[in-house]
Amino acid sequence: MAQKKDKKQKTFRPKARVPRGFRDRLGPEIAAEREMLARIGAVYEAHGFDPLETPAFEYTDALGKFLPDVDRPNQGVFSIQDDDEQWMSLRYDLTAPLARFVAENYDGLPKPFRRYQIGPVWRNEKPGPGRFRQFTQCDADTVGAPAPYADAEICALFADVIAAAGIERGDFFIRVSNRKIVDGLFEKIDLADEADLQTRLTVMRSMDKFDKFGAKGVALLLGPGRKDESGDFTEGAGLDDNKIDTVLAFLQSGPEGANNDPLSAIANILGETASGAAGLEELHGVKASIPDFETRGIVFDCSVIRGLDYYTGPVFEAEFTSTLSDAKGRPVQMGSIGGGGRYDGLVKRFKGVEVPAVGVSVGVSRLLAALELKKSAGETPQGPVVILSLEKHQMAEYQKMAAELRAADVRAEVYLGGSNFAKQLKYADKRAAPVAIIQGEDERQNGEITIKDLVKGAELSKQIEDNREWREEQPAQFSVKRSELVETVKKVLGRQNDLSVHP
Amino acid sequence: MAQKKDKKQKTFRPKARVPRGFRDRLGPEIAAEREMLARIGAVYEAHGFDPLETPAFEYTDALGKFLPDVDRPNQGVFSIQDDDEQWMSLRYDLTAPLARFVAENYDGLPKPFRRYQIGPVWRNEKPGPGRFRQFTQCDADTVGAPAPYADAEICALFADVIAAAGIERGDFFIRVSNRKIVDGLFEKIDLADEADLQTRLTVMRSMDKFDKFGAKGVALLLGPGRKDESGDFTEGAGLDDNKIDTVLAFLQSGPEGANNDPLSAIANILGETASGAAGLEELHGVKASIPDFETRGIVFDCSVIRGLDYYTGPVFEAEFTSTLSDAKGRPVQMGSIGGGGRYDGLVKRFKGVEVPAVGVSVGVSRLLAALELKKSAGETPQGPVVILSLEKHQMAEYQKMAAELRAADVRAEVYLGGSNFAKQLKYADKRAAPVAIIQGEDERQNGEITIKDLVKGAELSKQIEDNREWREEQPAQFSVKRSELVETVKKVLGRQNDLSVHP
Repeated sequence: MAQKKDKKQKTFRPKARVPRGFRDRLGPEIAAEREMLARIGAVYEAHGFDPLETPAFEYTDALGKFLPDVDRPNQGVFSIQDDDEQWMSLRYDLTAPLARFVAENYDGLPKPFRRYQIGPVWRNEKPGPGRFRQFTQCDADTVGAPAPYADAEICALFADVIAAAGIERGDFFIRVSNRKIVDGLFEKIDLADEADLQTRLTVMRSMDKFDKFGAKGVALLLGPGRKDESGDFTEGAGLDDNKIDTVLAFLQSGPEGANNDPLSAIANILGETASGAAGLEELHGVKASIPDFETRGIVFDCSVIRGLDYYTGPVFEAEFTSTLSDAKGRPVQMGSIGGGGRYDGLVKRFKGVEVPAVGVSVGVSRLLAALELKKSAGETPQGPVVILSLEKHQMAEYQKMAAELRAADVRAEVYLGGSNFAKQLKYADKRAAPVAIIQGEDERQNGEITIKDLVKGAELSKQIEDNREWREEQPAQFSVKRSELVETVKKVLGRQNDLSVHP
Repeated sequence: MAQKKDKKQKTFRPKARVPRGFRDRLGPEIAAEREMLARIGAVYEAHGFDPLETPAFEYTDALGKFLPDVDRPNQGVFSIQDDDEQWMSLRYDLTAPLARFVAENYDGLPKPFRRYQIGPVWRNEKPGPGRFRQFTQCDADTVGAPAPYADAEICALFADVIAAAGIERGDFFIRVSNRKIVDGLFEKIDLADEADLQTRLTVMRSMDKFDKFGAKGVALLLGPGRKDESGDFTEGAGLDDNKIDTVLAFLQSGPEGANNDPLSAIANILGETASGAAGLEELHGVKASIPDFETRGIVFDCSVIRGLDYYTGPVFEAEFTSTLSDAKGRPVQMGSIGGGGRYDGLVKRFKGVEVPAVGVSVGVSRLLAALELKKSAGETPQGPVVILSLEKHQMAEYQKMAAELRAADVRAEVYLGGSNFAKQLKYADKRAAPVAIIQGEDERQNGEITIKDLVKGAELSKQIEDNREWREEQPAQFSVKRSELVETVKKVLGRQNDLSVHP
């Protein structure tokens, strides 16, 4: 039977393709992400956060949010039934595994407990341009510490992490608000009752459109409704003019507002509400617990609406200060570079008690994209030095050259294909090799090697006016003694580096 | 409907538990693995291998080996049916995704193509002690280069990688054989026909028991069969005595053998067979292409039987030279620390043509376990410096102290729980903090801080004979000026370090 199957398989040729909504990554992109995440991890660890690694799977009932049903077990998550009939799902974020981990190990953990986690998460969603079904998340959370001290620390840490990732201070800011202040707003406009839930959701959805539609558009959404250019009508929340004015004043209380003092502005609008007062007190506490609050780029801005159903206290979100430009000067909208907040219900699902928690999730792909934009066009990633292998019986000697270069921190590889010279040079080109090392029979018998500077060609000839003269001074190809291999290659690489940094 | 479900969920309390066969890892274990893999990755990159990252999922038909059937889609792998009815599986190794990637991107890749990949793989198997359903693999492969040059490079790289991981040269060796030589053995003993497949498999299984049962036991397995101590009988391969002698001579041709020249020994046994001669030539080629063959710990040993159905040329496997001991001096059997070989059928399933490939998979968990054993008992991982927070209105000042320590590369954190002094010290203990920083109202008013050396206690009192005298000289708790925080903490940490290294 098994043999029969084998026979069959031999004639079947599957098409090689990456699964829909997933992607491969090779070389520089991974290296850049890995390097950035290492810098971020180092900041977390310096702050006393320990790395945690949970498995890709969680029991579906422990994940919360999603429950599989028999007809369609994959609503938003990838789920699978284990041998013992239990449903497992691939994690869709790093917070749900943290909740499970804390609930499972509660007694043994130091409290407060700080942890960070970096790893892939999976979403069983319709893929779109730039939207993948697997991506990297990078979270830090403090469990078991009440507001505002842990919130303040996470805010300051968030700023340090973005800076460590490579975004200069001043190029980003962190907007801070508080779920309780939004509750205060609903008290103020008489929408705090349980029965008003639907209206509250409509109001929050409208507020979230402030950046997009401005005060006039949001006023329509809060009141009678809004017709867009295409003629589509969005039903409004039906608030009266007074209440609409309150909401708009609330949205305009941010740091760009007239008085530049958001907390006072908010206090004026809804300071007398119980929730509003509590929220303001927490935010004052946050500010008092962060040294250098302003210079870290942290600002209060109560127009931040961040999944407020989930959060229970301070919330924050990071953004770039200005629109970034790509290499051709075109503006690029980057959106949020992550955020977080306080969610005191973390382990309630498991243990029935509230455990205070506050965390932040760093937008890995946004940060990487921003770093990519910041790179100058000249900084193309450089490949390894390629040592041609013209005489295959000299392979050990070529490998020795490579080992000598590596020992001097120069990335190097030996060509391992056939003997054709042109093919070997073409390979060096494809590898973006800065230098090729050539030793044929003649060179070998003279105890020499030829060093070919591969950067001089296309790129440098553009930059040097009198190309012929420069070539004579700094020839693209020359021979040196075998013993001078490392020294000479380092010299050529240094020269290339100077030229590409200061063209 | 949605609301009804919510109500129901409120009363349901899932048990917080990690899924069966999976595990969480926290702190030092992850840090150790991450550090080791970074060192390994750096060696790969220095050798011109580019990092590749493929998604967790592959289409099941592209994975090969396993095909889901409707009744039981999870035979050894975790499989799931996508919205468009296609079956996807979590990768069970990193070679199958490489085959798919190379077949999908063949024309655009430099050839030969070197890549390495580090990441989790998943096996849907019955979990056992130390056997998990998710674990890390770490592979390097060269695609498109024929034997023996790429094989030689991978062998040498393998040795460099194990050394970079932290195992000293001389503490491990790499045994090299060749699938073709085993084919030569089967020619020699008249088992090369297609009809002899089952007997060949029995012979190989028997040969694989050489380490366990010795020459006598294997002779029984090759001949009439073997009865073990419990009385269970294993049927033999039924070879005649001549052939058994040939196989035993083959197994005993390794470097520990009489003549210490495995390739000559093998040539004597089966040099005249076509496959044997071809295999020997390749191994001579491997040796000629590696500088410092012996000092890298590479030896020929044809008793290496490594999934030979899959490999088509040289194969290799790394082992420790001697049995390791744990902290209490008890011997620990570590087994193989990885291996690999040539498999020219890599993309044949997809493209119908053979593409030569050779690769190695490093045994991540074995290496980590060995490094763990090598650690002296004194090297307990150290936690961060903990700054107590006795006056919550001074939180920004405590955070400033932490920031100053971090700026001097000292891991530091502020206690964020309640104000109880004893609880804060207990927390510092649980965090394995080397030092606690204390500033209450009195200290603050004097511009001072108290530094508590937490290592002096239990551990050092054991080592210092006249504990009282030592304590007076090096008090465990003392006050310094606030401005001397960083300098003093560094001094205490340095002293602790000296004491733990030279007790």
